Amino acid sequence: MAGTLFVVGLGPGREDLLTGEARSALLTSDLICGYTTYLRLIPELISGKETYTTPMRGEMERCRHALEQAAAGRTVSLICSGDPGVYGMASPVLTLSPEYPDVEIVVVPGVTAALSGAAVLGAPLGNDFCVISLSDLLTPWETIARRLKAAALGDFSTVLYNPASKKRRDHLERACQILLENGKSPVTCCGWVRNIGREGQEHGLCTLEELKDLEADMFTTVFIGSSDTENIGGHLVTPRGYRNEENRRIQRDHRGEKTGL
Amino acid sequence: MAGTLFVVGLGPGREDLLTGEARSALLTSDLICGYTTYLRLIPELISGKETYTTPMRGEMERCRHALEQAAAGRTVSLICSGDPGVYGMASPVLTLSPEYPDVEIVVVPGVTAALSGAAVLGAPLGNDFCVISLSDLLTPWETIARRLKAAALGDFSTVLYNPASKKRRDHLERACQILLENGKSPVTCCGWVRNIGREGQEHGLCTLEELKDLEADMFTTVFIGSSDTENIGGHLVTPRGYRNEENRRIQRDHRGEKTGL
Repeated sequence: MAGTLFVVGLGPGREDLLTGEARSALLTSDLICGYTTYLRLIPELISGKETYTTPMRGEMERCRHALEQAAAGRTVSLICSGDPGVYGMASPVLTLSPEYPDVEIVVVPGVTAALSGAAVLGAPLGNDFCVISLSDLLTPWETIARRLKAAALGDFSTVLYNPASKKRRDHLERACQILLENGKSPVTCCGWVRNIGREGQEHGLCTLEELKDLEADMFTTVFIGSSDTENIGGHLVTPRGYRNEENRRIQRDHRGEKTGL
Repeated sequence: MAGTLFVVGLGPGREDLLTGEARSALLTSDLICGYTTYLRLIPELISGKETYTTPMRGEMERCRHALEQAAAGRTVSLICSGDPGVYGMASPVLTLSPEYPDVEIVVVPGVTAALSGAAVLGAPLGNDFCVISLSDLLTPWETIARRLKAAALGDFSTVLYNPASKKRRDHLERACQILLENGKSPVTCCGWVRNIGREGQEHGLCTLEELKDLEADMFTTVFIGSSDTENIGGHLVTPRGYRNEENRRIQRDHRGEKTGL
């Protein structure tokens, strides 16, 4: 009889940021598969268990191994940082799944960097938002550019994953340029968080104009506000809306505007 | 000395879907504030604690009460379903926070319906996506319509929160119409989940054309695929990209296409 494959999101990587469901999945598994670095984040939960690790680019190999072991009747967890559904392993596993029809696949959600990073900065995603990866390893840059343009036209709060890597140093600057050319103001309130929930966590606020020069790396998540996003006492906050009278009054009070109503 | 206000995301609402950090925040709090229905979801965690509940529309009152009690030196948790930063209480609390400068505010992220619903359906958010609420209580419909148009132009996977309520029965149909008018195909793969992680959870897949007629309610979260999203064995899956050779091969195999490469 075939077994179960849990595709588990660890969240930012600290053990207390996992959900109870993720914790249970790991504890009931016979085999834990994952990228080496992620396994090191949860030593207590996987202590004494068989593990299968591959380096960063060995993702399809890891998916196949996890599916094969589950097909052989084992209970397997394949782990991802953040949420497995957001640029994670749920999509490649499900793409391969028709070859392993008897394996039960359970996607266990986790707190993705858009949410954990937003919590560090305040509430930049308090209204509609979009999430775009600047990595062109799997998506052509033209598609990324088209989405950045749409994000600007829709005045979304926007989260950028993978803003830079050693080989792609200028992607963030190019992304900011596209946003500016499509109507985002250079003084749009922005922020960034590095090493979310891990040792050495850092964050900062800046304008979109300043963001162009941020030295981002692959552990940085970037937040670009909508036109409503404000810096309120050092927190990046997107209000949920303006039609509520109390909200309007508070906004005015904080801006020091005269109340005409 | 002023106390701490935790703004806590419960995730979908089942106790095992909370993070450890959310659980700790609740356990260390003297006072738990929240919408009545949400408090009922976590009876064990708040057992024996003082609670302050207001009905759905009393949100600003709840924020003020939580801030005032924290200012008086108490440890307070203000709870939200999902993530407090996504259409939740983090934004209104931080908007009021300059009036309570000594209160330490900690936003504790949770698994929002975009992630928990995606996990039920498969991996619809495997590449870039956006999240749009169809509620026009706080956001004018023109802004919502503009964002739907941008979502279509950017070919994002799109999650719709608050697709309908008793007073807004036709919002989902209008949203689908805007997407169709702006380039989304009527056969775009879509899905929906109702009562995520709670009793009576249901889900289904459909096309964008069919989605127009879905009887959604305020407990339904709707997923609209990008042009790459597929129904793979009953799972809604957005591939992470097409430039990877193995991905390409798998896609072709599943479609039964001839391999020309």
